[in-house]
Amino acid sequence: MITSFYPPVRTLMGPGPSDVSPRVLSAMARNTIGHLDPEFVRMMDEVKLMLKQAFKTSNELTMPISAPGSAGMECCFVNLIEKGDKVIVCQNGVFGGRMAENVTRLGGKLVLVEDSWGSAVTVSKVEQAVQNHPDAKILAFVHAETSTGARSDAKALCGIAANAGLLTIVDAVTSLGGIEVDVDGWGVDAIYSGTQKCLSCTPGISPVSFSDKAVEKIKNRVEPVPSWFLDTNLVMGYWGAGAKRAYHHTAPVNALYALHESLVMLLEEGLDDAWARHRLNHNALAAGVEAMGMSFVVDADDRLPQLNSITIPDGVDEAKVRGLLLQNYSLEIGAGLGALAGKVWRVGLMGESSTRRNVLYFLNALENTFSELGVDMNYGVANKAALSIYQQ
Amino acid sequence: MITSFYPPVRTLMGPGPSDVSPRVLSAMARNTIGHLDPEFVRMMDEVKLMLKQAFKTSNELTMPISAPGSAGMECCFVNLIEKGDKVIVCQNGVFGGRMAENVTRLGGKLVLVEDSWGSAVTVSKVEQAVQNHPDAKILAFVHAETSTGARSDAKALCGIAANAGLLTIVDAVTSLGGIEVDVDGWGVDAIYSGTQKCLSCTPGISPVSFSDKAVEKIKNRVEPVPSWFLDTNLVMGYWGAGAKRAYHHTAPVNALYALHESLVMLLEEGLDDAWARHRLNHNALAAGVEAMGMSFVVDADDRLPQLNSITIPDGVDEAKVRGLLLQNYSLEIGAGLGALAGKVWRVGLMGESSTRRNVLYFLNALENTFSELGVDMNYGVANKAALSIYQQ
Repeated sequence: MITSFYPPVRTLMGPGPSDVSPRVLSAMARNTIGHLDPEFVRMMDEVKLMLKQAFKTSNELTMPISAPGSAGMECCFVNLIEKGDKVIVCQNGVFGGRMAENVTRLGGKLVLVEDSWGSAVTVSKVEQAVQNHPDAKILAFVHAETSTGARSDAKALCGIAANAGLLTIVDAVTSLGGIEVDVDGWGVDAIYSGTQKCLSCTPGISPVSFSDKAVEKIKNRVEPVPSWFLDTNLVMGYWGAGAKRAYHHTAPVNALYALHESLVMLLEEGLDDAWARHRLNHNALAAGVEAMGMSFVVDADDRLPQLNSITIPDGVDEAKVRGLLLQNYSLEIGAGLGALAGKVWRVGLMGESSTRRNVLYFLNALENTFSELGVDMNYGVANKAALSIYQQ
Repeated sequence: MITSFYPPVRTLMGPGPSDVSPRVLSAMARNTIGHLDPEFVRMMDEVKLMLKQAFKTSNELTMPISAPGSAGMECCFVNLIEKGDKVIVCQNGVFGGRMAENVTRLGGKLVLVEDSWGSAVTVSKVEQAVQNHPDAKILAFVHAETSTGARSDAKALCGIAANAGLLTIVDAVTSLGGIEVDVDGWGVDAIYSGTQKCLSCTPGISPVSFSDKAVEKIKNRVEPVPSWFLDTNLVMGYWGAGAKRAYHHTAPVNALYALHESLVMLLEEGLDDAWARHRLNHNALAAGVEAMGMSFVVDADDRLPQLNSITIPDGVDEAKVRGLLLQNYSLEIGAGLGALAGKVWRVGLMGESSTRRNVLYFLNALENTFSELGVDMNYGVANKAALSIYQQ
């Protein structure tokens, strides 16, 4: 007979999920109420309002999708793409590739603008692609590429799209709450994020937002949205304005309690302060890692503070190091994905995981593990280098 | 500034979510670990094993989809239907209609077999439709129609399909855990359920299972599955056998803790005992309701014990009654949907909500509310009638 499951207590410094605050966990455990209960509807309104603040938008169509970030991505593509639409997708990592998959599966015409893994999207290449494809309808790119740790210039890319009359789809799964996301300021048309990164909520929900221009394209579709579950016309019957909410699907009530609490916490801290905290802890981590003699995959200017891809030193068994960190320190860091598999570790400093405690804990645990394995490295300097950043 | 949300304590006797056990809520609040953590992978294996027991199947492709029941439905249709496939859908309520929507949105050819709302699917009509459409590929029907409370003869319908070489898609959202579901015994090819009904878990996850024949059809598709998120070929890279799990999407870790615990509880009680409990509490509710002078929409033989559609007495303001039950008794019951909107109340006795305490509480609260509103009714008899069932 299978019995109850009690997870070990981990420190989560991978690419997500990040550490979840006890405040969020206890919100999640509150008694379930109905998804049409007037009290629940009031809470939904608060979630929408806080998501607008987090995304910096006044978009009416701003809401959480009842499924993980991959479904949020699919929600943007399945609503906006009609068969035959030409879509320019920028690929500089795993998630740009997933966007491309969405386009082809939906019958769109794919134009791929490729950059190497670890680079930001090259703005001039996108300018060129937009010029070369005057019939393109949509430009899609990843703001914060979780597979590499590169940040692309969302403002510049959205500007190019707007000048050419293209709609934009932006992946902000790893950026929201960790670095600036400015939906209205940049003129983003469709954006999706995830709860389990810098919002430090449990995984499973994907906040999305659509501009009025995007809503207009959806309303003027010739064929219905192929997905019933993700059709924003239907979902908004439940999440839309007013006290009257039409049943669409049963909302994940407790997961939304958790998202509500994580947004309350983010806004208590303040967006600017949250971004500054992520920046500071990244700087400390980088100082420590570089003092040990290791290097980052991404140039400093394009680096995401919340997702640190560190090149694995020659001759080190990367899986063994991760295994020992988990076994001896209950500390999770991430492996490389795709083109970077086996070449990097991904160290997350997202949301609740972005703390001085975690930075120093990681540096110590890694140094001890290197020592155990006899790795040739600068010992005894990482902690001091990191501390010097905090003492500036 | 928006502050933390504290939901009221409700008794949930609507069409779902049902009451959630404190055991499940506290499982959900355990600390989050990584979705590729070896301990999490071990828990996933236990979830799959318990789902197989609950569904009564040995299907290898049995797993929880990371989204609500509607996404589970879409997962079955989007994987199995290829453009131009003829699909026979039985409609006797809202959810058969949703199945039909899935077929047309995916480019399938729809053949609709209609029955009145509140009736079971008429087996002879389906036999006729299968004869009339020898080129049909799939038969889809709802086992337990949540919008009406009617149970259809899944064994007979699957038998017809198997004889004619059709695959079956079965909606078991409201049946799993409340009445018998026998996937292998009946020869079901694709089935989906939900966590928030008779499993008494929090809403948000949809268990699915596919037979080998269904998997074969998916593998032989000409075009890829239009949905990346729901493509079982990809999802099984994460949920499949063996210790090595490939990242697909970030699983909703805490929601799966909750599902695990609710399955442990179901199997502790035993499937037969759980079904008997649902039957007993339904009988008591029915005795009480009928003693008051009200009637059920569905014939006794086709009635779901877990979802009771009760005809609203003439002249009664149905929304006012529901409002007073919520306000004065913190008791939720459901409104009618679709063709039954305004005509019925839906009283759920699902999972943790299926208790003697809830049956008697509902009968008392309803009688008091009728009295307050001056409804002409048999007073003072409902409780006694219900108790007599428990004392048999």
